[in-house]
Amino acid sequence: MFDTRLKDAASQVQAHLDRVLGELDDLPVVQAMHYASAGGKRLRAFLVLESARLHGIAPDQAIWAATAVEALHAYSLVHDDLPCMDDDDLRRGLPTVHVKWDQATAVLAGDALQTLAFELLARVEASNDPAVRAELVLTLARASGAAGMVKGQALDIAAETAATPLTLEQITELQAGKTGALIEWSACAGAVLAGADTSALSIYAQKLGLAFQIWDDVLDVEGDAETVGKAVGKDADAGKATFVSLLGLEAAKTRAETLVKEACSALDCYGDEAETLRQAARFVISRHS
Amino acid sequence: MFDTRLKDAASQVQAHLDRVLGELDDLPVVQAMHYASAGGKRLRAFLVLESARLHGIAPDQAIWAATAVEALHAYSLVHDDLPCMDDDDLRRGLPTVHVKWDQATAVLAGDALQTLAFELLARVEASNDPAVRAELVLTLARASGAAGMVKGQALDIAAETAATPLTLEQITELQAGKTGALIEWSACAGAVLAGADTSALSIYAQKLGLAFQIWDDVLDVEGDAETVGKAVGKDADAGKATFVSLLGLEAAKTRAETLVKEACSALDCYGDEAETLRQAARFVISRHS
Repeated sequence: MFDTRLKDAASQVQAHLDRVLGELDDLPVVQAMHYASAGGKRLRAFLVLESARLHGIAPDQAIWAATAVEALHAYSLVHDDLPCMDDDDLRRGLPTVHVKWDQATAVLAGDALQTLAFELLARVEASNDPAVRAELVLTLARASGAAGMVKGQALDIAAETAATPLTLEQITELQAGKTGALIEWSACAGAVLAGADTSALSIYAQKLGLAFQIWDDVLDVEGDAETVGKAVGKDADAGKATFVSLLGLEAAKTRAETLVKEACSALDCYGDEAETLRQAARFVISRHS
Repeated sequence: MFDTRLKDAASQVQAHLDRVLGELDDLPVVQAMHYASAGGKRLRAFLVLESARLHGIAPDQAIWAATAVEALHAYSLVHDDLPCMDDDDLRRGLPTVHVKWDQATAVLAGDALQTLAFELLARVEASNDPAVRAELVLTLARASGAAGMVKGQALDIAAETAATPLTLEQITELQAGKTGALIEWSACAGAVLAGADTSALSIYAQKLGLAFQIWDDVLDVEGDAETVGKAVGKDADAGKATFVSLLGLEAAKTRAETLVKEACSALDCYGDEAETLRQAARFVISRHS
């Protein structure tokens, strides 16, 4: 069920991105936006669509918020891959935007993908209720700006030149910003769209987001580059603190498993209706890429 | 009157930026956001505050939209200055962000300034009416994204490697995106805040924006670096088409003067109340920096 829903989310988001990017002039920067926002697991879009379903929001409405968060996620990847940031040549097994085009195009495509995310949320199709549209914009801005995702990224860059490796507390704060905030926004979006309480989904997503990042660190040690779709062993080689280096491999896996159980329990109030979201949590610590 | 109002707008925006950036953790990226958003003429903020005044919107409400557009303008300057873009070491007579910090910090500070712009517009303080907040977000996104400012910037970069210089029509389209769209958004913001018709302010701003850019090209030829606050003669040296290279210096000046007259006439419906905005239009073609 989860597999099917995740695939459905991916194809719906791709079709919607094709539509909204198709409204723009066919410039290289728009082609780069299209390229950068294609592919990926679409976990964030899935979380939006699934939490929307849980609250009785129609998929053709929720798709706007789902596409917005994927556009925002894509912007962060394009900029993270830049030579002055993580300097990655490969993303999802394909050349990164600055390799395929150039750095200027990568900066601009990332910039415009961020703008697109807010445009999609502010369009009337995202919700008939303007208060909901404004709330979606406000919460996404807080999740992705200097108090959220950018903060996590900045802490990550600072850690590379720090005299001592990060502590567990610091790396948890870093990841809560870098990955957690967008995952939480996605899982809560359905409740926001319905004007419902977000607290259960919020706890679910915080646990899920942390488990997700711990598992990324596990894959960096255990995975192979071809399956993971990007360079592995990079963090360990760079002497960076990771959940695995701080906890040890087995304890990191156990921690991720506990977090997933807690994430699933947080959804008790939704009963069986939330089973696909629970499956998503279990998927996070079983994935190979 | 215009001079005083412009200075007032500048100090109000600076105080407001200090306040909202003061809410964030004191990280290098936040310091860079502060540095990048300090100074400048604040013409965009002035246009927001003045069009708001014209529509009876209180300054302490309009300041949110005024600060938002300055945050967005600051993001565009930080990214434009990057080595892979215009590669400028100097901005307003001071080292650019990537020179004072590094490129990664410049990318992230620009990213977060863009996010901040949308956050400020979506906050309830920007307008009690959520429909107005959503409209401000939507119109700013359209003005600044791949159909607006980023499009202008992308066309500008493409022009540098094009086989033939741009035509007058092409450079007008380029500038309408690169500079014009944000100026138009600013001038219309007061009407949007009041739920009023934006068409007169829109025409005013389109004329003003084009005059502004023509005058920038005039300054690139006639100005000296110290007064202008950045390198001059750069465009001419690079063989780039400018309004001056296409029209000639005197005809470019005449064109700017005509546009300013047309901009002033567009505000006839506002009577004497719009005199400060007319003064602003005249200022654009009398400035030395």
